[in-house]
Amino acid sequence: MIQADTDAIVRVVRSCVCGSDLWSYRDTFKREPGSRYGHEFVGVVEAVGSAVTKVKIGDLVVAPFSYGCGTCWWCEQGLPTSCPNRGTWGSGSEDGAQGEALRTPYADANLVVAPGGTAAYDDARLLDLLACSDVMATGLHGAVMAGVSEGSTAVVVGDGAVGLCAVLGAVAIRKAHRVILLSRNPARQKVGHRFGATDIVTVRGQEAKEAVLDLTDGHGAAHVIEAVGTADSWQTALDVVSDGGQIGAVGVPHTAPTLVTKPLLGRNLGVRLGLCPVRHYLDDLVGRVVAGTLAPGAVFDVTLPLEKTPEAYALMDRREAIKVALVP
Amino acid sequence: MIQADTDAIVRVVRSCVCGSDLWSYRDTFKREPGSRYGHEFVGVVEAVGSAVTKVKIGDLVVAPFSYGCGTCWWCEQGLPTSCPNRGTWGSGSEDGAQGEALRTPYADANLVVAPGGTAAYDDARLLDLLACSDVMATGLHGAVMAGVSEGSTAVVVGDGAVGLCAVLGAVAIRKAHRVILLSRNPARQKVGHRFGATDIVTVRGQEAKEAVLDLTDGHGAAHVIEAVGTADSWQTALDVVSDGGQIGAVGVPHTAPTLVTKPLLGRNLGVRLGLCPVRHYLDDLVGRVVAGTLAPGAVFDVTLPLEKTPEAYALMDRREAIKVALVP
Repeated sequence: MIQADTDAIVRVVRSCVCGSDLWSYRDTFKREPGSRYGHEFVGVVEAVGSAVTKVKIGDLVVAPFSYGCGTCWWCEQGLPTSCPNRGTWGSGSEDGAQGEALRTPYADANLVVAPGGTAAYDDARLLDLLACSDVMATGLHGAVMAGVSEGSTAVVVGDGAVGLCAVLGAVAIRKAHRVILLSRNPARQKVGHRFGATDIVTVRGQEAKEAVLDLTDGHGAAHVIEAVGTADSWQTALDVVSDGGQIGAVGVPHTAPTLVTKPLLGRNLGVRLGLCPVRHYLDDLVGRVVAGTLAPGAVFDVTLPLEKTPEAYALMDRREAIKVALVP
Repeated sequence: MIQADTDAIVRVVRSCVCGSDLWSYRDTFKREPGSRYGHEFVGVVEAVGSAVTKVKIGDLVVAPFSYGCGTCWWCEQGLPTSCPNRGTWGSGSEDGAQGEALRTPYADANLVVAPGGTAAYDDARLLDLLACSDVMATGLHGAVMAGVSEGSTAVVVGDGAVGLCAVLGAVAIRKAHRVILLSRNPARQKVGHRFGATDIVTVRGQEAKEAVLDLTDGHGAAHVIEAVGTADSWQTALDVVSDGGQIGAVGVPHTAPTLVTKPLLGRNLGVRLGLCPVRHYLDDLVGRVVAGTLAPGAVFDVTLPLEKTPEAYALMDRREAIKVALVP
């Protein structure tokens, strides 16, 4: 139900399960029974408040996983994740996307219209749009924060949906010359190749370090995207980055790894971490999907009806699916 | 005495004491009795090896505080601090600059000639050149790593010689619009003003945070230079940087503070730490001093003869001098 005149009600067309949802599934992050879940969705606008002028009833829209007010200083800087009025779907009292419909505050500021409505997109393209809601934007944000630029060499640590999208962002958008993906899972390696990874390192730890150094004349890579968020993945990122290089980190640090500053100083290393301000990237990403030049939807290897959401969690928990899309 | 054909022997004209020398003075960093000290100097070339072609006997030269081979991949990248053949004066078996003369390996690759010889520079200008050997380059490196750019706002945490030179680098070279210096010491504040600080915050801790937020519409500064290296100074840097901002850190982390990654992620913060690759900046800095457009020598507020070196350490240890120059 519309509560503020800037609200819209959006009926979900596609949503999905995020790796971060698994924390509470695994009970490592406590949530109240009955909490709503899901922060990624594509949907159709069903109702709008009186102040909503850009988004119209019937529009197919892509939502960023978190919203901002769109008018504060932070939103104007392209950093809605720091907006004092920010919110994330399926968090606190917000409606969740793993459901049938949501109330979306500040609709004009956050929802991006995919032209043509649902009729213009087949199943695969709907998943391309859905990926822009979080993982594609987050992977690209990692590549941007790692300073990946045209002709550069990057390493991606993490073969989850975000890591795979980081490969795609580094190759297709940031125009890296070489992208080395660390992955031990054949299904994920396949998506990594499809997304443009030039090399795949199938070992981990000290062996991964040696493999990346072998591939980079012993120097390491100038750009590393950390897309896991554990102490181990950070160690690997530090092992494979070249002195003077830059780590862009998007893996939500659930175990809150710490960085010792002294070795970073001696090696002239930069690190940048960021919860992705999706809205900042969303016009561009949706535009690329609409134009047919970006297809991140391959990270969804399973699609289930909404009522099978528990099975979606179980598949991802057992790493039998990369990312499961849900259809209400 | 020349040992390799790429060596030069340089007679010291000016050297100085570094804040980092005080660690061993204070016995917090153990060194062997009889170790040589001093890593910053300006001198006259007295002898050269047979392979030295650029640097000539009689040249006035400025030395970077650490040297590289000049020909490896790292040196070619402008990162001699990662050269496998790197060395630092007054460290390990290297000659120290707090003495009469040094053997300098890879002379052509490291020593930068100040044209005209000693006759072309008065006492003040010799100190300007001396500052380029470490603190001016290091301060500028902090500003570069913090991403200070034309028209930007920066905060400098630390009012030692490096912090003051960071102010000068941010203002005179990186063209910042506004530079806020944190300093509680009137003598250092005076140099800060002379170097172009637009605002000086004379409190610390929580009060400093509030003062900087007041000066920046509550947002903090997009660029912060951390020039101390303690847990407290890092906390202040994190307190005053705006979300989405960048900390450039040159304070050698003697107590090795650690960074907790999770808050950095939520705030979209970048940090870059670096031991300054002085040689990368030295041609430009010496050129500016020679042209009369850069005068960092004001960080030397006391000059003593070499035999009074113990007094120089005592003055700096008691914070009665910012930085003491030594004349052999």
